[in-house]
Amino acid sequence: MTAGFDPKLHEIAVPPMRWDAWGDPDLAAPLSEGTSTLIRGMLGVSGEVTLPTIDPSTVTVSPSRLTADDLAALRGIVGDDQVSAADADRLLRAGGKSTPDLLRRRRTDQQAPDAVVLAATDDEVAALLAWCGENRVAVVPFGGGTSVVGGLDPETGGLRAAISVDLRRMDQLLDLDEVSQIATLGAGVTGPEAERLLGERGYSLGHFPQSFRYATIGGFAVTRSSGQASAGYGRFDDMVQALTLVTPAGVLEAGRSPKNAAGPDLRQLVMGSEGAFGIVTKVSVRVHRVPETTEYEGWRFDSFTDAATAFRTVAQEGVMPTVMRVSDELETALNLARPTEIGEEAGADEDLPDKQTPGGCLAITTFEGSPSAVAARAGVVREIFTACGGQSLGPEPAKAWEHGRFSGPYLRDALLDIGVGCETLETVTTWAKLDELKAAVNAALAAALPEPVVVMCHISHTYATGASLYFTVVYRQEGDALEQWLAAKKQVMQAIADTGASITHHHAVGRDHEPWMVDEIGDLGIAALTAVKGVFDPTGVCNPGKLV
Amino acid sequence: MTAGFDPKLHEIAVPPMRWDAWGDPDLAAPLSEGTSTLIRGMLGVSGEVTLPTIDPSTVTVSPSRLTADDLAALRGIVGDDQVSAADADRLLRAGGKSTPDLLRRRRTDQQAPDAVVLAATDDEVAALLAWCGENRVAVVPFGGGTSVVGGLDPETGGLRAAISVDLRRMDQLLDLDEVSQIATLGAGVTGPEAERLLGERGYSLGHFPQSFRYATIGGFAVTRSSGQASAGYGRFDDMVQALTLVTPAGVLEAGRSPKNAAGPDLRQLVMGSEGAFGIVTKVSVRVHRVPETTEYEGWRFDSFTDAATAFRTVAQEGVMPTVMRVSDELETALNLARPTEIGEEAGADEDLPDKQTPGGCLAITTFEGSPSAVAARAGVVREIFTACGGQSLGPEPAKAWEHGRFSGPYLRDALLDIGVGCETLETVTTWAKLDELKAAVNAALAAALPEPVVVMCHISHTYATGASLYFTVVYRQEGDALEQWLAAKKQVMQAIADTGASITHHHAVGRDHEPWMVDEIGDLGIAALTAVKGVFDPTGVCNPGKLV
Repeated sequence: MTAGFDPKLHEIAVPPMRWDAWGDPDLAAPLSEGTSTLIRGMLGVSGEVTLPTIDPSTVTVSPSRLTADDLAALRGIVGDDQVSAADADRLLRAGGKSTPDLLRRRRTDQQAPDAVVLAATDDEVAALLAWCGENRVAVVPFGGGTSVVGGLDPETGGLRAAISVDLRRMDQLLDLDEVSQIATLGAGVTGPEAERLLGERGYSLGHFPQSFRYATIGGFAVTRSSGQASAGYGRFDDMVQALTLVTPAGVLEAGRSPKNAAGPDLRQLVMGSEGAFGIVTKVSVRVHRVPETTEYEGWRFDSFTDAATAFRTVAQEGVMPTVMRVSDELETALNLARPTEIGEEAGADEDLPDKQTPGGCLAITTFEGSPSAVAARAGVVREIFTACGGQSLGPEPAKAWEHGRFSGPYLRDALLDIGVGCETLETVTTWAKLDELKAAVNAALAAALPEPVVVMCHISHTYATGASLYFTVVYRQEGDALEQWLAAKKQVMQAIADTGASITHHHAVGRDHEPWMVDEIGDLGIAALTAVKGVFDPTGVCNPGKLV
Repeated sequence: MTAGFDPKLHEIAVPPMRWDAWGDPDLAAPLSEGTSTLIRGMLGVSGEVTLPTIDPSTVTVSPSRLTADDLAALRGIVGDDQVSAADADRLLRAGGKSTPDLLRRRRTDQQAPDAVVLAATDDEVAALLAWCGENRVAVVPFGGGTSVVGGLDPETGGLRAAISVDLRRMDQLLDLDEVSQIATLGAGVTGPEAERLLGERGYSLGHFPQSFRYATIGGFAVTRSSGQASAGYGRFDDMVQALTLVTPAGVLEAGRSPKNAAGPDLRQLVMGSEGAFGIVTKVSVRVHRVPETTEYEGWRFDSFTDAATAFRTVAQEGVMPTVMRVSDELETALNLARPTEIGEEAGADEDLPDKQTPGGCLAITTFEGSPSAVAARAGVVREIFTACGGQSLGPEPAKAWEHGRFSGPYLRDALLDIGVGCETLETVTTWAKLDELKAAVNAALAAALPEPVVVMCHISHTYATGASLYFTVVYRQEGDALEQWLAAKKQVMQAIADTGASITHHHAVGRDHEPWMVDEIGDLGIAALTAVKGVFDPTGVCNPGKLV
């Protein structure tokens, strides 16, 4: 095995994502001087690069375990130009984008799938699954590559190899029913591409998770993604009307009507299945007309508790904004609501009279729809926010948030360089348990990581009965950075499970959260999912080691 | 086997429901003269009683197949006073309340479960399931007894007997989390009792299906019930936060948070399971404060198509009333929106200026909530309705509908007496397919039943992407009334399945719709549900012959 690979030597389509860091290199920004100074000061790190990304010439990639005959067979299914065993192609599908993934990519030894196969049709997927079953090869479906839970790890599950089945060729708007406002999209359509395809017809999907620029329709469905506009348009699992799941045992078409009473809802069994039951190849989703109006408004609350009460009251009244989120005191103080300006001084900004007030939390709302519906909804929300102590800050904070909302993840790579760990965690519980959950996560992180640990939190998904909590933790790396974080993560996960909260609100299970599934659904729940997997995937080729 | 049973000879609690007809005899009303004249005239029947309810002294009830030892064992589990093999008790749990059920109850030979057992705790249910597994006895869970799909038929599934496990002792409000607005209710709590228990604390569930007065929380969950306020409070499956399912294989606690991404949603696997996976013993549901304000408004639309367009526009804008329903032209003309006044002349009513206009459809809305939210929502809906050609009729029609809304089913028994068949059917599809579906159901009924067939329809459950259609069919009975209807029902079901609509919106599957489940979810879907049943119910005791 020779060290070194050529990151430019591709044989198939190249995802717009670095193999060893978040996102598109053209969009990455270095750490601003302000952010860097602030974080260095807080954590007591020098700013010297201690853990750089790796030099490709020093990297050893796990060699493909597939033979020339295997690759020829795969080419026979999908076409000669749609299969690659090149290191550069395989490394781009070697995993997701959690902090552990990024730390692993900074090592010289890399585990990668044994080949990448680009499937374009249901028949090709079915044929690939059949071939893999006969040849004892595992299949890891690949969309945008943005998993942060190890959902893309090229596990073989005891089989002789693992291939990555990249779905980017399933990139079409297959149908748009304008009366019912239902679009059918290929599983490989990315967030921006969905908006472009629908936008040409006057429609929008309105699903904007942090991974929006890269992640795909199929991935949204199988991981139960939730976007920033979930208050208005729902989680992705709320939007889904129907899915096609191609399994080794045949094709399941789930969903014939908006809602019904024809037994258990099989859509809800496919959603969250994370490739373990087969590959979702197309999804029918609720869409809406491109909104006539958008109204933006930022709010200041004295405390996170006040803001949470306001959000709860709004959700329980049932008249929701399109986007509704609030940062806790620390996240507000560090200005994470404006990811491009973390730690920047706010005093110069005339539009934000209250932003300099010590303490306090920044909340933002947007409202999309017809002018009269927007005015009606905004009026109700404004009345509730005001009654709960909120002070309007005008539209600017919400517009600023929207502008920078996909930039956050790039900062993490720059922090890792200088020995600063940074990761996000998320969970969800009922309103009554929200404070306890927030305290438990903070305590677990404080206990597991070297002082001082910076833990910021926001609510970005609000329900009548509860809310998600999304944490960003920044800390000083010590010892083996990967082991350090995995140990901390383990403690936080157990703390979350012990409070009775869910182990994930929208990041999914993958390999990283799988050990806590027994806390979440119990042995009998796992037995039920295992039985379903046995029906769909009798030979165990579908994304082994994930989910259950 | 001697003919005759004493309908007064009970050994256990008596449901407030006749064994051979709908509902509480104290609430039943005879057919009004107006209704009777109208229907006799339309269908050409004389009004003479041709198919009376049966004289108990002529009825032969299937003898219990349980031995004295069996009954003693059951009494050992639940207590001496909680088991009965008396005919009167068994007949009250012999089936549901579909028209076929009611026709069967007018025969001299009756099939009934072999005993009725009243279980009060999870442990009792678990012990019953274990005993039944060891002793090859099937278990039919019983709540309010209002199934209209054969969900309560005492099928043995090849085992040696079948018992009805009545859950009425699970009648408590177990917990009320006022912050999160989540109530945990025993499976046997009825609709009115849920409102009473919650009302004492200032809360309401807001779930009002036609079966409201009798049906139970557990039944609502396992059949995916949908109530008349579904526009505002959602279907029952939207309200459910958590469920406890006691199965022969152990207890599944499904649901730890409002929504999450921890794999497939197991709540959605339990909901719709109709007793085939075990018995749901408690359910945590979203509740809301008793509304401060209720606003009522009736509307007239020129056509069902115009009304459907208005409903679609409202749902797609996302600002919904609490109740929103519209009757088609015939249902409006026959005044079914006021079940106590079917066919009554409307001219005298000064509050309804447009009701006499020939043709046209009556729609009603209610809005519940805080005064400002109600005003905001009603304003948006009013604007859309007016733009779609609706004319406001003021509050009266909506109040009249609310007043009579649970009385409809009593009329059916009176019609059956005089040789008039009457049944309801329901389905759901996307907006684009709604007209085709309505036409297909009408055509199937017209082809299957003697002319003239009266088919009325309303929309009472509206989604952004589609709506339910609820049909009431009134026809002249000919030949064997049961066989006549079963043949017609078969043709309608196939017509529904063939249009791609769902085979049920909220009546569930039971035994009657089971043959069309393969149309709905395919062989692979059925295989998945069968595998899940195999995990929960390895000995096949749980409600055999239902669902799958």
